[in-house]
Amino acid sequence: MKIVCDAMGGDNGSPAVVEAIQNFLKKHDDVEIAVVGKKEELTALEGKCEIIDARDVVPMEAGALEVIRMKDSSMYKAVNMVKGGEYSAVVSCGSTGGFLSTATLLLKNIEGVKRSALVVPFPTSIKGKKVVLLDVGANNENSPEELLQFGTVGKLYSKYVFDVEKPNVYLMSNGAEEGKGAPEVKAAYKLYKESNFEGFQGNIEARYALSGKADVIVMDGYTGNVFLKGTEGVAKLMGGMIKSAFKKNLWAKLGYLHVRSGIKEMSETMDYKSTGGAMLLGVNGVVVKAHGSSDAWCFENAIRVAYQLAKADIVNKIKEGLKSE
Amino acid sequence: MKIVCDAMGGDNGSPAVVEAIQNFLKKHDDVEIAVVGKKEELTALEGKCEIIDARDVVPMEAGALEVIRMKDSSMYKAVNMVKGGEYSAVVSCGSTGGFLSTATLLLKNIEGVKRSALVVPFPTSIKGKKVVLLDVGANNENSPEELLQFGTVGKLYSKYVFDVEKPNVYLMSNGAEEGKGAPEVKAAYKLYKESNFEGFQGNIEARYALSGKADVIVMDGYTGNVFLKGTEGVAKLMGGMIKSAFKKNLWAKLGYLHVRSGIKEMSETMDYKSTGGAMLLGVNGVVVKAHGSSDAWCFENAIRVAYQLAKADIVNKIKEGLKSE
Repeated sequence: MKIVCDAMGGDNGSPAVVEAIQNFLKKHDDVEIAVVGKKEELTALEGKCEIIDARDVVPMEAGALEVIRMKDSSMYKAVNMVKGGEYSAVVSCGSTGGFLSTATLLLKNIEGVKRSALVVPFPTSIKGKKVVLLDVGANNENSPEELLQFGTVGKLYSKYVFDVEKPNVYLMSNGAEEGKGAPEVKAAYKLYKESNFEGFQGNIEARYALSGKADVIVMDGYTGNVFLKGTEGVAKLMGGMIKSAFKKNLWAKLGYLHVRSGIKEMSETMDYKSTGGAMLLGVNGVVVKAHGSSDAWCFENAIRVAYQLAKADIVNKIKEGLKSE
Repeated sequence: MKIVCDAMGGDNGSPAVVEAIQNFLKKHDDVEIAVVGKKEELTALEGKCEIIDARDVVPMEAGALEVIRMKDSSMYKAVNMVKGGEYSAVVSCGSTGGFLSTATLLLKNIEGVKRSALVVPFPTSIKGKKVVLLDVGANNENSPEELLQFGTVGKLYSKYVFDVEKPNVYLMSNGAEEGKGAPEVKAAYKLYKESNFEGFQGNIEARYALSGKADVIVMDGYTGNVFLKGTEGVAKLMGGMIKSAFKKNLWAKLGYLHVRSGIKEMSETMDYKSTGGAMLLGVNGVVVKAHGSSDAWCFENAIRVAYQLAKADIVNKIKEGLKSE
């Protein structure tokens, strides 16, 4: 198995990626890694990886059209290597918009896939249990038929990355009852029912999304993005409040010493970087977007997810899964 | 000014409402309150309020059609009293769906209002500053024209309840740039621009929704509901994690003693009950939905918001505001 890593474009530059690859390779001997970037920054990987020189770095705020024109960028080259089929997966911590669009344009959707979806696993109230949310932002809108496909794709992710044998699938809605939701949600509900979708449990309200009862929650990309970013905002707001609480006085500061391991554990659970970032599922290849501010640990997690997905042969699993629907 | 309170249907029953009314009346001598419910439970208010007997209580899970048929319920009677025009506002902590539908059906939309919206003020990172979000669930979908009207309505709320002289208005989107968002959001963006909407600042990503820079954020009811409930879910998840952190060992437990006032402050800030619940804006009358689990303090806050909105003559302000758009 071969995985390509884009070494550039992240907030921490190539050193974080180099370290991540070194650490990953120490633990895995059944995978080859190719790394794309300014070769003078990648010398530590000589002899361990295939190194592909690329002179351009896609800026964080770059859009789709820009990246497509930057043919000597590490991102474009990295994605393009997966196109040939020799490499199974690509990982990048560069511009999200640029990376996702390039992957969609170069790799094309898997036969039968109407729209690819951005997938993010979230922490839940049940320790160690993650819930798979999709689409969290690859699309601006989705049809009922696309929302049905997302269910299949999400289920495969839950099965092969989190080892859930029979994943529960819910539709995000503004009420648990049938008949609740935006028009597309209502129509999707019908499609799930009509197709006797295995594991479909109906609607779920956003307040229970992280309760741990769902394995997969499906929604359109606009709503998913609002949910993803909204939870990020609230977590940040509450994090700030906790900090102020501990700064109130000397006793509170001392109190912090005793709970800091617990607080750290919470931050890590809430931090979706620890889950390996976001995956674009539905294209011909494994595409993993590490967080822009990834450190070596985060990027290594992202490579690990790419490795798991490639090992599970997720692209073919999706192909088969869609046929049997 | 006259305000009607539905005394029944909340998780804490009529005693919480009775106490809330007593406390509110102690602080306000320019308002009369009418209370609707089982009269034998309202004897403490004799001589202080007009008491209207109603034998039925709308169950928490009741839908629109049920309430409309329950003509002897406290909720139906309370809303119906506002219809005549003698009473300016109605407050209830009963079934949300039932209350909102009854209000919409009986009070009808203000002339010119396409859709009424559920409005909730949220805490922000700036201490004491609230942001007004709408629609958070009165509708399943909204047209661009409705999203434009929500801006006007939200601005009036920000102005008259939070005393913001020139409120900033944003559209919730999956990116800050123009051209981002679901199709309705993109179209609404154009309408805001074309109408030179005063205070319009463009799109805002959900991660910055609670940062404090926005006074008003407009979105469709489905998305708003997912945002509202999603933040509730995350706050609950994090709250649970904080508790576990403090339970780790004896020292952590002792640590809690020193930070509990700070933690309590955080919980109260995050608790939207403290803001007086949610308001249905756009109908002919002030309609305030207190949280189902309201205690006396929450319900009193809800009455206070109803009082402020009625005093600001919000119904006529909306009428005028829509004319001048």
